[in-house]
Amino acid sequence: MRPERFLTLNITCPDRPGIIAAVAGFIASHGGSIAEANYHQADGVFFMRQEIDAASLPFGLDELRVRFAPLAAEYHMDWGITDSAVPKRMVILVSKHDHCLNDLLYRWRAKDLKFDIPCVISNHLDLQGFVEWHGIPFHHVAMTADDKAEGFREVRRIFEAHRGDLMVLARFMQILPPELCEAYPNRIINIHHSFLPSFAGARPYHQAYERGVKLIGATCHYVTSELDAGPIIEQDVVRIDHSDHVEDVVRYGKEVERSVLARGVRYHIEDRVLVHGHKTVVFK
Amino acid sequence: MRPERFLTLNITCPDRPGIIAAVAGFIASHGGSIAEANYHQADGVFFMRQEIDAASLPFGLDELRVRFAPLAAEYHMDWGITDSAVPKRMVILVSKHDHCLNDLLYRWRAKDLKFDIPCVISNHLDLQGFVEWHGIPFHHVAMTADDKAEGFREVRRIFEAHRGDLMVLARFMQILPPELCEAYPNRIINIHHSFLPSFAGARPYHQAYERGVKLIGATCHYVTSELDAGPIIEQDVVRIDHSDHVEDVVRYGKEVERSVLARGVRYHIEDRVLVHGHKTVVFK
Amino acid sequence: MRPERFLTLNITCPDRPGIIAAVAGFIASHGGSIAEANYHQADGVFFMRQEIDAASLPFGLDELRVRFAPLAAEYHMDWGITDSAVPKRMVILVSKHDHCLNDLLYRWRAKDLKFDIPCVISNHLDLQGFVEWHGIPFHHVAMTADDKAEGFREVRRIFEAHRGDLMVLARFMQILPPELCEAYPNRIINIHHSFLPSFAGARPYHQAYERGVKLIGATCHYVTSELDAGPIIEQDVVRIDHSDHVEDVVRYGKEVERSVLARGVRYHIEDRVLVHGHKTVVFK
Amino acid sequence: MRPERFLTLNITCPDRPGIIAAVAGFIASHGGSIAEANYHQADGVFFMRQEIDAASLPFGLDELRVRFAPLAAEYHMDWGITDSAVPKRMVILVSKHDHCLNDLLYRWRAKDLKFDIPCVISNHLDLQGFVEWHGIPFHHVAMTADDKAEGFREVRRIFEAHRGDLMVLARFMQILPPELCEAYPNRIINIHHSFLPSFAGARPYHQAYERGVKLIGATCHYVTSELDAGPIIEQDVVRIDHSDHVEDVVRYGKEVERSVLARGVRYHIEDRVLVHGHKTVVFK
Repeated sequence: MRPERFLTLNITCPDRPGIIAAVAGFIASHGGSIAEANYHQADGVFFMRQEIDAASLPFGLDELRVRFAPLAAEYHMDWGITDSAVPKRMVILVSKHDHCLNDLLYRWRAKDLKFDIPCVISNHLDLQGFVEWHGIPFHHVAMTADDKAEGFREVRRIFEAHRGDLMVLARFMQILPPELCEAYPNRIINIHHSFLPSFAGARPYHQAYERGVKLIGATCHYVTSELDAGPIIEQDVVRIDHSDHVEDVVRYGKEVERSVLARGVRYHIEDRVLVHGHKTVVFK
Repeated sequence: MRPERFLTLNITCPDRPGIIAAVAGFIASHGGSIAEANYHQADGVFFMRQEIDAASLPFGLDELRVRFAPLAAEYHMDWGITDSAVPKRMVILVSKHDHCLNDLLYRWRAKDLKFDIPCVISNHLDLQGFVEWHGIPFHHVAMTADDKAEGFREVRRIFEAHRGDLMVLARFMQILPPELCEAYPNRIINIHHSFLPSFAGARPYHQAYERGVKLIGATCHYVTSELDAGPIIEQDVVRIDHSDHVEDVVRYGKEVERSVLARGVRYHIEDRVLVHGHKTVVFK
Repeated sequence: MRPERFLTLNITCPDRPGIIAAVAGFIASHGGSIAEANYHQADGVFFMRQEIDAASLPFGLDELRVRFAPLAAEYHMDWGITDSAVPKRMVILVSKHDHCLNDLLYRWRAKDLKFDIPCVISNHLDLQGFVEWHGIPFHHVAMTADDKAEGFREVRRIFEAHRGDLMVLARFMQILPPELCEAYPNRIINIHHSFLPSFAGARPYHQAYERGVKLIGATCHYVTSELDAGPIIEQDVVRIDHSDHVEDVVRYGKEVERSVLARGVRYHIEDRVLVHGHKTVVFK
Repeated sequence: MRPERFLTLNITCPDRPGIIAAVAGFIASHGGSIAEANYHQADGVFFMRQEIDAASLPFGLDELRVRFAPLAAEYHMDWGITDSAVPKRMVILVSKHDHCLNDLLYRWRAKDLKFDIPCVISNHLDLQGFVEWHGIPFHHVAMTADDKAEGFREVRRIFEAHRGDLMVLARFMQILPPELCEAYPNRIINIHHSFLPSFAGARPYHQAYERGVKLIGATCHYVTSELDAGPIIEQDVVRIDHSDHVEDVVRYGKEVERSVLARGVRYHIEDRVLVHGHKTVVFK
């Protein structure tokens, strides 16, 4: 049984013996019950994720943070604690392709995954009706060649106004400017419609069709200022063959895009992703 | 980097707060460095696996066992420690189908996985030459309807004489008697050529073909006295379609059998499998 | 390039030399261009599917049928011709689980697959709003223990009134009575939430969890009067492990259910499924 | 039931109506029974593969060729007919990695696929003993930096002397010179240890590990004078995660390499691959 409410403690720090003992000892000293625990080390760096049953602790999130801080300082930890009772606020950006949006809205509606959608932003009006049917605000932001910079400033204002935790590019067909990427490191998730690093850039399915590959894929990654090169969170592929027209390839691709994005978003929302340089540790 | 030599500590015990702290604290108190750690809890039971860098400890396996025993007793642990420098001794039983045997012998030859094969036992002579080319002893044990009981006593004598740790039924087409199954709990591994619980019993591929399923599979499990019902270690499937003749189904099946058996054997040999009733916890 | 409009000719007949020549010769004699062709034979039975470019024929569907009939009679064919310009009418039955319904409605909305949904029938009211947002009629039919027979007569009346071609049980948690199953052979599609024949009957995910299998699956099949035993159209599986709670298993299952149902429905709608006894030939 | 012996007729020609009728009519006019038939068209080109039951024809392969030639000329066909009773002669080139060689030799030994291995060529001596245990000649050809050109001339002489039909590079760690590639178009098969076009060139697993991809793969392709760019026959992938060391990635890779190569070789040997520019049509 998963506890009803849990606090997730994530840590990245220089590796040395005794870290698990110190952290587990700290939790145990307060009677904390660990529901799930994961560890990893690579290149002299130590990664740790722990779900602590909130009901097992005699105090709340704020005091836990205060009490944990000295230990964190001692081990030079980059750390954070989140509370499963506080859903993350996910702002979705979309253009016209709606398969990923439909999937995310369904998961929100079905409570398949716990998160809030404070608003959806689009550079087109096509999806306004469907979004608003859910009772979710829809913001149209024009992205014409002339005023893209202003468009992206507007995106940022909306994101801030809605206190977004996470920006998801659910097939948003615009390249984010570097200053936006850098403002929210590891907080912007994109779904790229190819198995990166193959077929970066435009029209990847057409590239794949032309090359004659036997599998096509999708890649969910954090957005950095370098196009299609951010840390990869999740990938998957699907088999195609010679009988598939390019439209079939696109259709298969949509299936894999939406499931890869959904998994990537889940890992992020459940605080299962720790970034390590340009790679990720994903504690599934 | 994985340490050159490591000790693997596996624990099953009643769940209660503080176990991780106690065990990690014990290891840290001796300067031990944990290379890989996994935890799981279910139904009030706690499962733990830790790889400790042997070079980080000031003493060897025997003293580690002595020092750990009091803690183990306090927490009512079912536990064990193995040494990566001591390869497990795997006795292989086979009849005439040799695809799994070929795969295991290749892995042994290629040092793809570290284990010893003290001997191969078969109720047929077909594979003697190939086994002996490897410099591995081959024992022929007749299994005629009249003297099966004696045949299985002979199997047991050979297994004991070779100080076997593990018996692998690599498509051994004979049903082991209950007393043999019970003599080596969680030490006999079978590969069943279906996706259990579908198509238990004889000729599973023919059953699958007749039923018209779209995927066929294989199941690697520990052998218990109940036929095809032991704890499942690993399973996988492969897609078939109407154009596949039953011989094609058998052929696809062989591919999945050998890879599922190889993975199951690997998990066992690396002490990654903890049995929980009639299920398994596999720390991959 | 797939032709804009095509006629699909499906044939099942006793196997004998010359069938392909006869049928292809007939089509060629009228200048017909074959866009896609598939053949299969098994157990003395011959199966054939051909997509003919409608624009390449000098006449329409009705005359094609008339002209083809003598050849069909000569070869004792069970045959049919459909027109890609006439979408099939798919009536969806659903209870409370809406993941499959959401998926099918999205595909309809996105024109990902060409079909009509004349109405949705449910024994609950939960999904009325979402269905009606699409402009699709929603019929509530009570299924209380006392009046199930009447409920199913009502289902049948609605299906007939809407001139349904196909009935899809998108997680409809009621067992259809034999007379309904037999009224529409190979026209009722169900999604069963297990990898049949494993875990037929109720609560398959809980059964799978208890057994400790390492993969769970879903099965799309035609409904016959024998529960969960009709011809299988499509199946797939997804990997689980010991760390998955039964709720996780259910969640993974929903993903595979909806994709397996979507594929099965696609094959049926595109006339790619030919039933052969209790098995299917699926020309992908 | 697959016929005991069959003739496989493969055709590539400009697309126009009536080809299937003409070819099927020709076969039927001689009483030929078609066991398996596949068709494909793309970009104005028509592809066809037919397995004809040899026992159903009143004459043999040579007369079939003579009789078919006029039809082939009329339709401007690029065509060929092979006889299942004549196994292809596959010359294997290998360096030190033996997982693919072991797999191919097993399939040959087990008659899992019908082909001859007239010899194995290697630039190292490591695998001589294992090859010769099979009774297969082993040729050592040195490939030092100074005399590579001579080495490849020797490879070609050996291939010709053994009347090779097919050259398989089973992890042969040398780049073939253009003149060798061009001498045997669509007759040299390579297994590349990445999911092309990702990670072409050297050390692809290390590249993949550095990039942090979540799946790695292998690609079986025909060799052309452009490195790693020939027509792809088959690909597959396997999942990895952050806990996998680069050695684990290599190990997983070996599994997928050998199965992808085995499938690609099977398709080629069964005459299922038709090359279309730099892509392939694979009639599975």
